[in-house]
Amino acid sequence: MKIVEIRNATAPIRSKIANAYIDFSKMTASVVAIVTDVVRDGQPVIGYGFNSNGRYGAKGLLAERFIPRLLEAAPDDYNGEHGLDPHKAWNLMFTNEKPGGHGERSVAIGVLDMAMWDAAAKIAGVPLWRLLADRYRDGEVDSRIFVYAAGGYYQPGKGLEALQDEMRRYLDRGYSVVKMKVGGTPLDDDISRIEAVLDVLGGDGSRLAVDANGRFNLDQAINFGETIAPYGLRWYEEPGDPLDYALQATLADHYSGPMATGENLFSHQDARNLLRHGGMRPDRDILQFDCALSYGLVEYLRTLALLPDHGFGPRNVIPHGGHQMSLNIAAGLGLGGNESYPDVFHPFGGFADGIVVEDSRVGLPDAPGIGFEARAALIALMREVTET
Amino acid sequence: MKIVEIRNATAPIRSKIANAYIDFSKMTASVVAIVTDVVRDGQPVIGYGFNSNGRYGAKGLLAERFIPRLLEAAPDDYNGEHGLDPHKAWNLMFTNEKPGGHGERSVAIGVLDMAMWDAAAKIAGVPLWRLLADRYRDGEVDSRIFVYAAGGYYQPGKGLEALQDEMRRYLDRGYSVVKMKVGGTPLDDDISRIEAVLDVLGGDGSRLAVDANGRFNLDQAINFGETIAPYGLRWYEEPGDPLDYALQATLADHYSGPMATGENLFSHQDARNLLRHGGMRPDRDILQFDCALSYGLVEYLRTLALLPDHGFGPRNVIPHGGHQMSLNIAAGLGLGGNESYPDVFHPFGGFADGIVVEDSRVGLPDAPGIGFEARAALIALMREVTET
Repeated sequence: MKIVEIRNATAPIRSKIANAYIDFSKMTASVVAIVTDVVRDGQPVIGYGFNSNGRYGAKGLLAERFIPRLLEAAPDDYNGEHGLDPHKAWNLMFTNEKPGGHGERSVAIGVLDMAMWDAAAKIAGVPLWRLLADRYRDGEVDSRIFVYAAGGYYQPGKGLEALQDEMRRYLDRGYSVVKMKVGGTPLDDDISRIEAVLDVLGGDGSRLAVDANGRFNLDQAINFGETIAPYGLRWYEEPGDPLDYALQATLADHYSGPMATGENLFSHQDARNLLRHGGMRPDRDILQFDCALSYGLVEYLRTLALLPDHGFGPRNVIPHGGHQMSLNIAAGLGLGGNESYPDVFHPFGGFADGIVVEDSRVGLPDAPGIGFEARAALIALMREVTET
Repeated sequence: MKIVEIRNATAPIRSKIANAYIDFSKMTASVVAIVTDVVRDGQPVIGYGFNSNGRYGAKGLLAERFIPRLLEAAPDDYNGEHGLDPHKAWNLMFTNEKPGGHGERSVAIGVLDMAMWDAAAKIAGVPLWRLLADRYRDGEVDSRIFVYAAGGYYQPGKGLEALQDEMRRYLDRGYSVVKMKVGGTPLDDDISRIEAVLDVLGGDGSRLAVDANGRFNLDQAINFGETIAPYGLRWYEEPGDPLDYALQATLADHYSGPMATGENLFSHQDARNLLRHGGMRPDRDILQFDCALSYGLVEYLRTLALLPDHGFGPRNVIPHGGHQMSLNIAAGLGLGGNESYPDVFHPFGGFADGIVVEDSRVGLPDAPGIGFEARAALIALMREVTET
């Protein structure tokens, strides 16, 4: 097969929300379309990819380096035993890139990698979760995937009642586990917010995760942890700077409940440093690496492969991002679940049309590829911005 | 003062050379020009910046995010007690950027930060080394800076004699310490190359550093270290992946000679992880962080500020990159020296015209700013590509 063309577009995913670190008023996402010469159902197969929220689109990097490297390559250099080979394509993209410094380019390559896997599964005529399960897990698939509703952002004028209403809407839509932002307001206010949400959850802390988005220093992280410990929360996410492994490890000495982090680590080398130095505990803690920000699934497979060296396994992994790519990976490779943003980042986040959340679990679409064509608003947007 | 305009250009710095990890055939550099409304000698003050080699230009990122944030800001937001305030400008550039993932954007901000300091020193009418010494070091300046000649790259058809000739040219030009690449060829070949260069240096290993550019795994790194130990080399640089702190720390248990690394760590958080987890020894080891790749001097000051917590000081720091920005920092803040590439990466690398290397030390130009105007080929190129 041959890559005929790669379209490179940017779409806004702006929102009025804010977490403890940034607001999303100017957030963008890259959208790429890899047009192949393979025909299915009378149409050329097109693989689509985008980056998930929190990092910006990478249009310049895609145009300057990564798309040219693919288009200048001979088809033999990206074709393997199954045809289009995302691993070989990855090596092409990373040619003449120095080690270290894993950010931004990890988004650019992640977007193209997503489109590669979408195209590869479409060419194979199967959903990506099936392709992954057959290729890497002896065919076993998780048919119902744990998802939780990530929300509880800070917004101007949003009080406790609005926060509770938001959480009730998630429950009404089938989620039983929710997540809220913390760290963007004084501790007392956050505690009031947590207690307000717990009221909605019948007081069950195991149904509520909190996310500080890296805002705390060590003392604040410990103080916050000790303050919330009695609630028995689902997890305490990204307390300090994502690269401050020593903070995370010290917090583990003071907070016995589950911790979660990893969404801002964008390579297997960074992930390994968390596992080596971050004090994360395989029996309870959650790893949130997001392939769409971190060089894609090819690199994600490297990250998953090193988990057992540190006592972890795929069930420890619940990716950040709330996109269908991670849902496919969760189902096909047996991860612990997937994030979901019921109210924001649409249509990039969310599941195929008609997929119902029940008891915080979702099923899978049968469409070939990642499933974008089964999500009308998303495929329409991606076709529009890439003019495909 | 007001920023009137920011020009954003890309220049090739391609070369036929290769290290153990990449070749430089398509390497680019960003060049920016910050045009201000301040007039000196009848002309508007323009600050210039570029990124040093090894990472690519960041034109897209500059255009998409960092230049707009500066141009959209009110002048009050980047003016401080001394007028143009690079620290305030830095905060503007980093607005709504999430923590972690320090690569590429660290180059874009580094380029603009360099131009900010160039403009600030030109507005003050002093060389940057003087401004830095006055502001951060009670006025003390190092008037002669240690520099070493970095070369010894792999090139097609380059044999031992050509390598020796290259090193002799460096000695003829006043360098007494040189560096060569290793790790790109089998160990026996590298040892032959090292011994050939040592012959040129009168057998004095303290005048030769070797650089593996992150190529080795742990066993290779240890094996290489044990093999070269008898030579007593100046330093053994970047043996493994720059984020593999555990490899570096384990190597320290097997190699007692000086080690050097850090050129591919692009934030103070990454630098801190090296100091915490990398086994680096303050009494002998070298830190090579390069401000032009790592968010500029504003972030570099944060990195320097955390060195004492780990027993290090500015003399441990000999930056990667071979550019005048690091030379100013070395002189003004008392670093251990600066890299120099006598044969490659010109005109971005190198010193002001007429500056002579003697006994591997250089003096400083008196021109206001970073000194670009005292290097004719460089200022001509920067003016041409930015049309200023």
